[in-house]
Amino acid sequence: MRVALLGFGGVGRALARLLLAKRDDAPFLVTAILTRSHGWWVDASGIDLAGALSRSELPSRGASPAIGDLPCDVVVEITTLDARTAQPALGHVRAALRARKHVVTANKGPIARAYRELRGLAAANGRLLRFEATLSDCLPVFTLRRAALPLAEIRALRGIVSSTTNHILSAAARGVSFSDALAEAQRLGIAEADPSNDLEGHDAAAKATILANVLMDADIRMEDVRRAPIDEAAARDATLAARDGARVRPIVEIRRAAGAVSASTGPRRLDPLDPLYAVDGWSMALELDTDLAGKVVVQLHDPHVEQVAYAVLTDLLEIAGY
Amino acid sequence: MRVALLGFGGVGRALARLLLAKRDDAPFLVTAILTRSHGWWVDASGIDLAGALSRSELPSRGASPAIGDLPCDVVVEITTLDARTAQPALGHVRAALRARKHVVTANKGPIARAYRELRGLAAANGRLLRFEATLSDCLPVFTLRRAALPLAEIRALRGIVSSTTNHILSAAARGVSFSDALAEAQRLGIAEADPSNDLEGHDAAAKATILANVLMDADIRMEDVRRAPIDEAAARDATLAARDGARVRPIVEIRRAAGAVSASTGPRRLDPLDPLYAVDGWSMALELDTDLAGKVVVQLHDPHVEQVAYAVLTDLLEIAGY
Repeated sequence: MRVALLGFGGVGRALARLLLAKRDDAPFLVTAILTRSHGWWVDASGIDLAGALSRSELPSRGASPAIGDLPCDVVVEITTLDARTAQPALGHVRAALRARKHVVTANKGPIARAYRELRGLAAANGRLLRFEATLSDCLPVFTLRRAALPLAEIRALRGIVSSTTNHILSAAARGVSFSDALAEAQRLGIAEADPSNDLEGHDAAAKATILANVLMDADIRMEDVRRAPIDEAAARDATLAARDGARVRPIVEIRRAAGAVSASTGPRRLDPLDPLYAVDGWSMALELDTDLAGKVVVQLHDPHVEQVAYAVLTDLLEIAGY
Repeated sequence: MRVALLGFGGVGRALARLLLAKRDDAPFLVTAILTRSHGWWVDASGIDLAGALSRSELPSRGASPAIGDLPCDVVVEITTLDARTAQPALGHVRAALRARKHVVTANKGPIARAYRELRGLAAANGRLLRFEATLSDCLPVFTLRRAALPLAEIRALRGIVSSTTNHILSAAARGVSFSDALAEAQRLGIAEADPSNDLEGHDAAAKATILANVLMDADIRMEDVRRAPIDEAAARDATLAARDGARVRPIVEIRRAAGAVSASTGPRRLDPLDPLYAVDGWSMALELDTDLAGKVVVQLHDPHVEQVAYAVLTDLLEIAGY
């Protein structure tokens, strides 16, 4: 299966390393790598991934081929995130599906902004659209729903889906200041470039929108999600709560009531018997309240960028029928 | 897809109710129900499940047809559990696979005793063997591994896989006596008929064996699992630990070290930031330490018998290519 990578930053490079390490098991040939400002490389017979990883600039300069003209079966959309506008990722995903290519994206924006449209476009073109990495690295969410929760109705969701804000409140529980914890997240490249995206809950709202629309068949917009910020006051609450053995965590909640789905994000105080209490630091988790399976919780503890790449790989493997 | 049910007790009846409720979505026709002492019913054109549920005795008496002669594509093995001998379930699974029928079983015994043999038999006959319900009701374990953790090596496992012993230690944390908690589990039909099977760790050892052999490609026997009992002393420790904000839980642990896989089960003291701390009461959970996905945890909170039937249904749906 021939793969085109749109974007070759941290996730793209981690994916290339993973594909190299698993080349005997994973049946993929990377035939195109396109970047915004570091050139491009297209070779229908397969790109030397080790060579690509060793370069800071790809060999071809100037205008790259159109997505529809790439010699590939699946397009991996991992350009720089812009959750608010969803561009240029949304345009890439549309172009790829219209050109009858499968799509794997790690970009929240297109799924948060246009899930129904893209789902329809994929179906109309007989191709698959996969986006496991958009939510919380390789936390099994959409894969889990398809494989382990078939026919089940998801009635409510609760989760910790933002590493940055969970790290800040976890650090506050240990007495670390808000600004020091934020600075650490920025230094590690985990906080988004504009920290307000995390702190004011835009990132969590995008993810709540994806969860509601994909897992609960809702049709809400990011702007419908009620947001309370993770700010210095929330961090102070986290410090105080820890003295009582509680934790304050950044929680998204989605419920269906009287037919309508409502979503919110903000700090919540949890006691130790809450399944989300122990989801500390950079960890993320989701609690699914279902009719047929009861209450199921998944957690991913202390992920790194390699776990984003792995989520993309699991989507690729599913598309390849692995 | 034509389904034969071997056994029609609590799980079989819950499965029949589920198949009735989902008959528009789940493409299954039950063509045979065999019981040990309440008769049998075979009808290649499909059994009236509502009728079967309303009867205490099935219409046909005397010797039932051989498994290989049943008019079915898949055999669901849900006879009475006997984890130690694995019979008669093991014989049923062998006979079904040899007759080129897919098999779904909720019986630990055959998988704990003979996984490699049965895996080989399934492969040789080109059929699927599925057993999600053997571990912890519909806690997503084997499905999760196949769908969400492809190519990943599972280096270590830790879990709570026995409802009865977790209930006893959870109750002890609230000050309930060992004998009262055990009696409640027996009254609810959750404790096995012989409570020593749960308390002395045979049940957990069977499940640890399944986990080690299926998820970590080991080849251990139930007798290789080191067992410490869940007894009155463990319950006293649980009561004392709760006063310090800790919990004592029944933990299975499986590790690979120097090439060999070792497994144990017994009470362990956990602090509130342990992902298994909040797995309280009848709940169960598994922590998977992997190379590619990092540390992933799944939990199932307070399941009922319907969740065992649902696990069987998810296996059936996978076999049907749903």
